[in-house]
Amino acid sequence: MHVYPRNMNNHTASRAAATTASAAAAVIGASGYTGQEVVRLLRAHPHIRLVAATSESERGQRVPGTALQYVAPEDVKLEADLVFTCLPHGESGAWSVRAHEAGARVVDLSADLRAGGHGAVYGVPEFWRDAIRVGSLIANPGCYPMGILFSLAPLLRAGMVDLTRTVIIDAASGVTGAGRSAKREYLFGEVADDYRAYAVGNAHRHVPEIAQALARVNGGAAPEFVFTPHLLPVRRGILETLYIPVVAGVTPLAAVSACATAYAAEPMVEIERTGLPSLRQVVGRNVMAIGFSAVSGVSAPMLVCVAAFDNLLKGAAGQAVQNANVMSGWGELEGIPL
Amino acid sequence: MHVYPRNMNNHTASRAAATTASAAAAVIGASGYTGQEVVRLLRAHPHIRLVAATSESERGQRVPGTALQYVAPEDVKLEADLVFTCLPHGESGAWSVRAHEAGARVVDLSADLRAGGHGAVYGVPEFWRDAIRVGSLIANPGCYPMGILFSLAPLLRAGMVDLTRTVIIDAASGVTGAGRSAKREYLFGEVADDYRAYAVGNAHRHVPEIAQALARVNGGAAPEFVFTPHLLPVRRGILETLYIPVVAGVTPLAAVSACATAYAAEPMVEIERTGLPSLRQVVGRNVMAIGFSAVSGVSAPMLVCVAAFDNLLKGAAGQAVQNANVMSGWGELEGIPL
Amino acid sequence: MHVYPRNMNNHTASRAAATTASAAAAVIGASGYTGQEVVRLLRAHPHIRLVAATSESERGQRVPGTALQYVAPEDVKLEADLVFTCLPHGESGAWSVRAHEAGARVVDLSADLRAGGHGAVYGVPEFWRDAIRVGSLIANPGCYPMGILFSLAPLLRAGMVDLTRTVIIDAASGVTGAGRSAKREYLFGEVADDYRAYAVGNAHRHVPEIAQALARVNGGAAPEFVFTPHLLPVRRGILETLYIPVVAGVTPLAAVSACATAYAAEPMVEIERTGLPSLRQVVGRNVMAIGFSAVSGVSAPMLVCVAAFDNLLKGAAGQAVQNANVMSGWGELEGIPL
Amino acid sequence: MHVYPRNMNNHTASRAAATTASAAAAVIGASGYTGQEVVRLLRAHPHIRLVAATSESERGQRVPGTALQYVAPEDVKLEADLVFTCLPHGESGAWSVRAHEAGARVVDLSADLRAGGHGAVYGVPEFWRDAIRVGSLIANPGCYPMGILFSLAPLLRAGMVDLTRTVIIDAASGVTGAGRSAKREYLFGEVADDYRAYAVGNAHRHVPEIAQALARVNGGAAPEFVFTPHLLPVRRGILETLYIPVVAGVTPLAAVSACATAYAAEPMVEIERTGLPSLRQVVGRNVMAIGFSAVSGVSAPMLVCVAAFDNLLKGAAGQAVQNANVMSGWGELEGIPL
Repeated sequence: MHVYPRNMNNHTASRAAATTASAAAAVIGASGYTGQEVVRLLRAHPHIRLVAATSESERGQRVPGTALQYVAPEDVKLEADLVFTCLPHGESGAWSVRAHEAGARVVDLSADLRAGGHGAVYGVPEFWRDAIRVGSLIANPGCYPMGILFSLAPLLRAGMVDLTRTVIIDAASGVTGAGRSAKREYLFGEVADDYRAYAVGNAHRHVPEIAQALARVNGGAAPEFVFTPHLLPVRRGILETLYIPVVAGVTPLAAVSACATAYAAEPMVEIERTGLPSLRQVVGRNVMAIGFSAVSGVSAPMLVCVAAFDNLLKGAAGQAVQNANVMSGWGELEGIPL
Repeated sequence: MHVYPRNMNNHTASRAAATTASAAAAVIGASGYTGQEVVRLLRAHPHIRLVAATSESERGQRVPGTALQYVAPEDVKLEADLVFTCLPHGESGAWSVRAHEAGARVVDLSADLRAGGHGAVYGVPEFWRDAIRVGSLIANPGCYPMGILFSLAPLLRAGMVDLTRTVIIDAASGVTGAGRSAKREYLFGEVADDYRAYAVGNAHRHVPEIAQALARVNGGAAPEFVFTPHLLPVRRGILETLYIPVVAGVTPLAAVSACATAYAAEPMVEIERTGLPSLRQVVGRNVMAIGFSAVSGVSAPMLVCVAAFDNLLKGAAGQAVQNANVMSGWGELEGIPL
Repeated sequence: MHVYPRNMNNHTASRAAATTASAAAAVIGASGYTGQEVVRLLRAHPHIRLVAATSESERGQRVPGTALQYVAPEDVKLEADLVFTCLPHGESGAWSVRAHEAGARVVDLSADLRAGGHGAVYGVPEFWRDAIRVGSLIANPGCYPMGILFSLAPLLRAGMVDLTRTVIIDAASGVTGAGRSAKREYLFGEVADDYRAYAVGNAHRHVPEIAQALARVNGGAAPEFVFTPHLLPVRRGILETLYIPVVAGVTPLAAVSACATAYAAEPMVEIERTGLPSLRQVVGRNVMAIGFSAVSGVSAPMLVCVAAFDNLLKGAAGQAVQNANVMSGWGELEGIPL
Repeated sequence: MHVYPRNMNNHTASRAAATTASAAAAVIGASGYTGQEVVRLLRAHPHIRLVAATSESERGQRVPGTALQYVAPEDVKLEADLVFTCLPHGESGAWSVRAHEAGARVVDLSADLRAGGHGAVYGVPEFWRDAIRVGSLIANPGCYPMGILFSLAPLLRAGMVDLTRTVIIDAASGVTGAGRSAKREYLFGEVADDYRAYAVGNAHRHVPEIAQALARVNGGAAPEFVFTPHLLPVRRGILETLYIPVVAGVTPLAAVSACATAYAAEPMVEIERTGLPSLRQVVGRNVMAIGFSAVSGVSAPMLVCVAAFDNLLKGAAGQAVQNANVMSGWGELEGIPL
């Protein structure tokens, strides 16, 4: 791909202009589940005009809902103000860096830049909005870390978590989280009617990202945790059940209050006053829903927390568009389904 | 129902005869998911002849796979040697006690007698086979407690569990576990594409049963625990992920060895040498599959354990037939799908 | 319910005002699947303000996504310009007629008024837009008839269908089409992993409506047909496979052309130039997707046609809002997801 | 693979011996869905000892439920009396022919030999039992043709079908019918919540086989037909809805009687006296269930027929074992789940 953005090497100018002009956007790796979802959101975005979408496997086919055809990445020659890179981990970062060097504002949806390489900003506006506003290369966060970060951050900052004990995070994700590559283990005949744990014992790729996000959000003071993802026989959605050791006297109501205060100005975070969110209430919406429950019958105080969100929206594409909005100076909710 | 068993008030004689003769069996509450599964197993059982099946809601309809019609409970007049009572909690126990007093060998599949009322024996042959052999009123265990008991018992007995910390049990069950009553929350339109926690914070009916079973199996020394069930959008199967605090030096291999030794003579327990069981490998089979994984990155030693089984077989009907086999002096595997 | 609409008995005035003012709307029977979907659409409608939603079963609970509570129908006292009646067949029509007599513009989503009783206009703008424009009581069409009408109408009008032979219509619907009442046959445990025909042999309630719609659309000349619905284990969507006997020489391309011409100005109808629509491409969108295929190896010429649409949108709630838009003089696409 | 069967080139001797001795069996292509199911059935078969199972993709892994490992086809060196070949179409037939030439009794589960090449016998015992009894190379039938053949044959033979009109066959199959190769279109994320037609207009590979089977079963006099398969979002099962033009006066009851008489001695065929079979009642069972319904409102007399069966059992593996039983002189029901 040869990216010749309009505002070459001038990200500040680009951003100033953004508030008045629409941006030309390219999606690199647009036929995977995340890429498809980015395309779907961009089609309805008031300030974005999709000008290119790449796909190796579907090259030449029509990009759904658009007049474009998928092109091979190496055949792209375009002027893009905004690039969303949705390639597999290991490939994606290099593309993003190249597009960024050529002057585009870039959101990389892979894990490649999440540790901060190449000056990438970790893209969670609810926590690091100012950095995203002045950034031009955003590392979109992983799906699983999002529910954990949003649930624990207010409690950590309020000193409610007992850092001497281990947080347990039991998570379940719909199958689109595994991508759209043709792998036998994700065939309908394998996944339907099944449920299984994978990458058990802190072996998942997201574990360092979770640790990094929790440490950052609370000045380095974060609890140890065990993270276990499971594969759910549904297409979309992540539900995470957290077992949070708390200091004495911390009630579900106190946790709810801490979150309600922390997210008072955040339209994409829904704190349940009573009850716990379920998967379906969040699928198709770019929100993070969180609730807390008391636990009876244990001596060491603990809360159960459930966080639910759409892995393709608040866990990927919706978050990416939100990041693009913030970075571009547009309304943060533009083009995002709530 | 009026039960006039053949061997009135003579359970010992009944059992002696059982090894040579077949038994006439009645299923009370036979059109629910558990009752249907009991009927299905009894149809293929070499020593059992199904003579009656009751159902209020399907009275007069054909019992699938048999020449019988469902009758109303109050219209039953039969000579049954063996009664399986699958009525809702609160109704089931009284029926079972009456049938037992009339001389039948009884397996009650509800929660009513699991605390031991009316002399009922808690029906887990792998742990209390001798009591079941001489028993005539069996309280079939709840589904969720089974995976927990089978996973923890060998570790508890081997002194591997750190009893000062809390065991976390995150469980997911197929929808047939909720029964076949027409309730809006279990409609296909509500459950499909969803996943949710319920009875969170040790609020589930099975919590006291879990505590009791763990205490019994290890002379009273059992850990505190938090139990969270979730509703899976599948018909059958339970998968339980346990986070077990262990004493220093206990490896997954040690846990596997403890279980392999404990269950060496138990054909219905499958210990995974490496890896963890998934839901589908157990659906349709009367087995309990268990595996263990190490956890990295935590100071306080912990194992992750996954137990998987079919909620309608090893979690209900299969277990009930196993209990009937033991109680009746038949081969424990007779009529049971492995 | 007591409906005191603002523009009592003055539907013409109401409509004139509609283009400049927003309408207050009530949804009667708002907690069923159709009612929920109407509410969901109205929340995002630029000209409609939802002021009441009724539900017997969820009375007092929060209407999702709104600040309203469900009220019992008899407790409603409101000024509504627009009423959507989503009650069960047999109850719904009477409510609609009363609301209409009290001056509201009404869309009835039941079958009660589809034969034209009480002056109700059959609500398919693509065919009878002028009547809807001047109407104030609309009978929203049944879901199954929609795909059949949209597929056959252009071919009938073009004289392409051989009326001496029988059209076969094999249809499959997601489970939300059966409503949200708690019935055992629609439990997840019954429907999942199953597929079955029902109301076979032209026994379905929609058969007379199909016959009436086909006759109306072509001046009385309509073919005989056999209609067989099946229950699909998915939540949403209808796919209808039609076997259409055609006069000699009618190719799929000719059928596509006839449809493309007929629907050239209709943004909610998508004609596939090649290929056939699948269920998922229409779920969540208020469109009717139609494609045609040739048939080889038969002497009597025939086309296979597939029509796919979302039973809750183009088959119910989306169609209802489209009707309300036409009737109210608003843009026909307002508030409708494409 | 080098097959050195025990009874080299002596199929008659082999069969005579079969009634008294057990057979050593090999499954070629044993890790696909059909191969897995054959293995599962053979494990429980009283006269068969599984001695080898091949798989390219899972070579070296354990064959589930056995002590064997999958081997590569070319590494097999065995003495097999009985070979089940479950390779893809195009590969399978050649293997079967080689194994047969080396002396084994062979059931080929692909389409390669169904036209009768190499003297293969078309394997439907209910119609051609005598030929199978003396055969040693069996072409196991395709899944879709089975329901059509079993439904139509008795009506054709009874002269009930109006051969001047076209039979419509609308079929729906679970996803395991598409095999276990890693193809994007069969990913869970693609198939779940979807339903779609494919190979429309008599383009499916099974169409010639259907025509051949119908012609054979009725001395060449068979109707024209249109066959449309659909992909169901379930793992197992086929349901076929047939629209059968009948001669005047043929009632559903007459059709039921014709079938009941034709299959009176066939335990694997279930004719519904009233009502129609559904998918789930046949999944897991080696049966063909068939029912008929009247059609009202049409001038040209027609019946609707529904046939339901498990695509992996009566549509593949169960049928294969049934064929092996007949060919080997064993009880036809041995090792087959009903």
